[in-house]
Amino acid sequence: MRIPILKLGNYLLISIQMELDDKTAIQFQEDLLQRIHETGATGVVVDLTSVDIIDSFIAKVLGEVVSMSDLMGAKVVLTGIQPAVAITLIDLGIHLQNVQTALDLEQGLMKLHQELGE
Amino acid sequence: MRIPILKLGNYLLISIQMELDDKTAIQFQEDLLQRIHETGATGVVVDLTSVDIIDSFIAKVLGEVVSMSDLMGAKVVLTGIQPAVAITLIDLGIHLQNVQTALDLEQGLMKLHQELGE
Repeated sequence: MRIPILKLGNYLLISIQMELDDKTAIQFQEDLLQRIHETGATGVVVDLTSVDIIDSFIAKVLGEVVSMSDLMGAKVVLTGIQPAVAITLIDLGIHLQNVQTALDLEQGLMKLHQELGE
Repeated sequence: MRIPILKLGNYLLISIQMELDDKTAIQFQEDLLQRIHETGATGVVVDLTSVDIIDSFIAKVLGEVVSMSDLMGAKVVLTGIQPAVAITLIDLGIHLQNVQTALDLEQGLMKLHQELGE
C-alpha cells in the first residue's frame, strides 16, 4: 500500500496513518521525490500524528527524505510527532538535526509560509 | 484504528487511507462530529483518493456524515472519488445527492471557499 501525497497550492501534504514498514518507507521516499519533481512543490508537510512507533531505519529514511527534498528545492516540515516517538528517537540517539518540526499541520504550514516568505 | 482528522484554519481535513470496515466508519462518523463541535469548523474535506472499494453500508455512513455535519453547520466536500468507486456507487443505486464532490483536495478547498464565501 502506498501513502497518498496530496497537493495544496505549492505544498505537498502527507498524513502518515499506517505503521511504516521498511518497504513502505522506501516507496514513500521515491513517491515523494517524484511528486516534488512533477509538481515543482516548494514545501512539504509530513504529518506523523497517527504514528505511535518508530524504529531507527524509519527514522533514517525520514531524515534522508528531508535532505533529499531539500536538494530538490522543497522544504520539509515534520508535524505531530507523538511523545512516545520523540522519546524513542532521542533514546536511539537520533536527533533529526536540521529537520524542521511543528506541533500540527496548521503550524507546519505556517512555518513553511514564514520560511518561504509566501 | 482511528482515522486522523487534521485541522486547517476553519476547515477539517480527512484523508481516508484504509479500507473502511463498518466499525471504523461508525467511529469516524462520531469522531468527525465531535471534532466539528470542538473546533467550530465551517467546512470539511474528506479525501477518498486511496479508497478503491466501497460498499453500500460505507456509502450510507458517508452520506449520513454529510447530512449530520450540515446540521451542525459544517459543509462537507468529498474529493478524489476513484472511477471504480463512482461505478460501484451508481451500480448500487446510490447517488449521494446533495453531496458536494471535487476532483482533489485543492479543488475541494476551493469549492468550500466559494460556497462559504471566505
